[in-house]
Amino acid sequence: MPAACSSGAAPGAFVAVDWGTSSFRGWLMSADGEALAESRGAEGMLHCSGAGFAPVLRDHLARLGAPDGIPILICGMAGARQGWAEAPYLKTPTRLDALHEGAIRVGARGDIRILPGVAQARADRPDVMRGEETQLLGGTDPDFTGLVCIPGTHSKWIRIEAGQLIEFSTYMTGELFSVLSQHSILAHAVEMAGQVPTKSQPFREGLATALAAPAGLTASLFRLRAAQLLGFEQRIDGAARLSGLLIGTEIADAVDRYGAPRSLRLIGTGSLGLLYEAALSKRGFDVTAVDADEASRGGLSRAAIDIWGAQF
Amino acid sequence: MPAACSSGAAPGAFVAVDWGTSSFRGWLMSADGEALAESRGAEGMLHCSGAGFAPVLRDHLARLGAPDGIPILICGMAGARQGWAEAPYLKTPTRLDALHEGAIRVGARGDIRILPGVAQARADRPDVMRGEETQLLGGTDPDFTGLVCIPGTHSKWIRIEAGQLIEFSTYMTGELFSVLSQHSILAHAVEMAGQVPTKSQPFREGLATALAAPAGLTASLFRLRAAQLLGFEQRIDGAARLSGLLIGTEIADAVDRYGAPRSLRLIGTGSLGLLYEAALSKRGFDVTAVDADEASRGGLSRAAIDIWGAQF
Repeated sequence: MPAACSSGAAPGAFVAVDWGTSSFRGWLMSADGEALAESRGAEGMLHCSGAGFAPVLRDHLARLGAPDGIPILICGMAGARQGWAEAPYLKTPTRLDALHEGAIRVGARGDIRILPGVAQARADRPDVMRGEETQLLGGTDPDFTGLVCIPGTHSKWIRIEAGQLIEFSTYMTGELFSVLSQHSILAHAVEMAGQVPTKSQPFREGLATALAAPAGLTASLFRLRAAQLLGFEQRIDGAARLSGLLIGTEIADAVDRYGAPRSLRLIGTGSLGLLYEAALSKRGFDVTAVDADEASRGGLSRAAIDIWGAQF
Repeated sequence: MPAACSSGAAPGAFVAVDWGTSSFRGWLMSADGEALAESRGAEGMLHCSGAGFAPVLRDHLARLGAPDGIPILICGMAGARQGWAEAPYLKTPTRLDALHEGAIRVGARGDIRILPGVAQARADRPDVMRGEETQLLGGTDPDFTGLVCIPGTHSKWIRIEAGQLIEFSTYMTGELFSVLSQHSILAHAVEMAGQVPTKSQPFREGLATALAAPAGLTASLFRLRAAQLLGFEQRIDGAARLSGLLIGTEIADAVDRYGAPRSLRLIGTGSLGLLYEAALSKRGFDVTAVDADEASRGGLSRAAIDIWGAQF
């Protein structure tokens, strides 16, 4: 996919940006919530903390062919303390359609706003999100009640009641996969080439192991290496098994916390989304999958209408 | 402690070496199992895979003031496939006093031998150790029955019956602490300065959290960071909480596997040994602590007598 692609048609009503820790995703949006052009890049918060946020945004606006003075709505880590400007967290419980009320304005020119994240400010279960709250807004109906899973570097499980975000938990699943396969003894046991297919036997075994005994994760991790040393498994199967172990541990704990399997909304993307869908179905969930990019755009569009009205 | 220190007295009967992944510990031993001199260094297997094992050993022998031609007995990763020469694993169940039977000879001159590790060659619970089997030999009586815990980078829990190593589990506890605090988002949340005191409140809380809900580790890890972002905890407390979470998860799973609390032998050293002793006592174990270096020397001495006889 090219970094930017445009239909070259309508002038666009606003620009939607999901600005994460390590990525930028921007879309020129029509008034009725359609993406007219897209621009993606690796200039996430970490990059911009040094290089500055405004110049990066300017470049992407040019690639999108966005007209001067177009309103811009941003979600994600750009609103963190270490981001462009801090958009203070809303606190749980909070209505998802109240996100726009916490938006802050940034930049000297034009109308650029950043949506807030959401904090669970409880000493016993402190937690934070930035970006996922906007995906929740876009990926659920206004009166949605149920459980949502958003896989990723820091996977989120969210309980929503009648459009209100009640509580959530973050799992370091994706980051553990990456850190363990790069910096631990498992670097010898995990080949990073290619994606894990959902039907992979070691993925399914890892999943079953973790679902059955999630407390044993730190031992299962070493056994992954030992199995290869002793000739029970090949290195090529390491990534799939590690993935199964980590995703299974996450799901087992989430089930413990949020109750027995039932229908679940999955806001995911690509092969990771497919792995979670397979894993959640295996555990008995009835999964409705929503594309993560669509959810981001949908949430930004709903908040944009609340901020600027439907007429723009 | 200096890299080498010698009493300068007796000539010594043999040299005992515990050669790990990232460290070398050598002792000039008397015939009755006393350490006459010690030489430690960071030239572990990883270092020697490039630089060679023989020259490193030669340097340490000189520092120890070891006489020419003295017999040398080595345990640990020097006997791994990527080590000096592979000493094939003994398989569980195995008598600890059979270790010497698996020793291999290395080097062109003198009598230098490496003890084997132990493998649990079971497809459902594959596991390996190199070095700990020697500490077990030295840290338990010949007819010992019970549970042993050896904390470290890769913590071991071992079930022994009448001097026979029946089964064991390895936990990546120490490596997880190191990798997470250096390479993950927790690098912002964990200060590495100083050691964790056993009475530390965040250590005890992390321990209690993990003992109560060990399946939730990957969520607890993120909450450690979130607690600091939300002002519930200071960065200075991060290392203690992380330590408590990881050690608690290990103990909870080991209890699941090896049964209800009872007397336990702990082969540990320094502040990590103290943390485990506090944690294990908290969980209801009656702990007998053995110094890890003494256990290594003791095991090497017992095996040396089996190899060369008591007369040397």
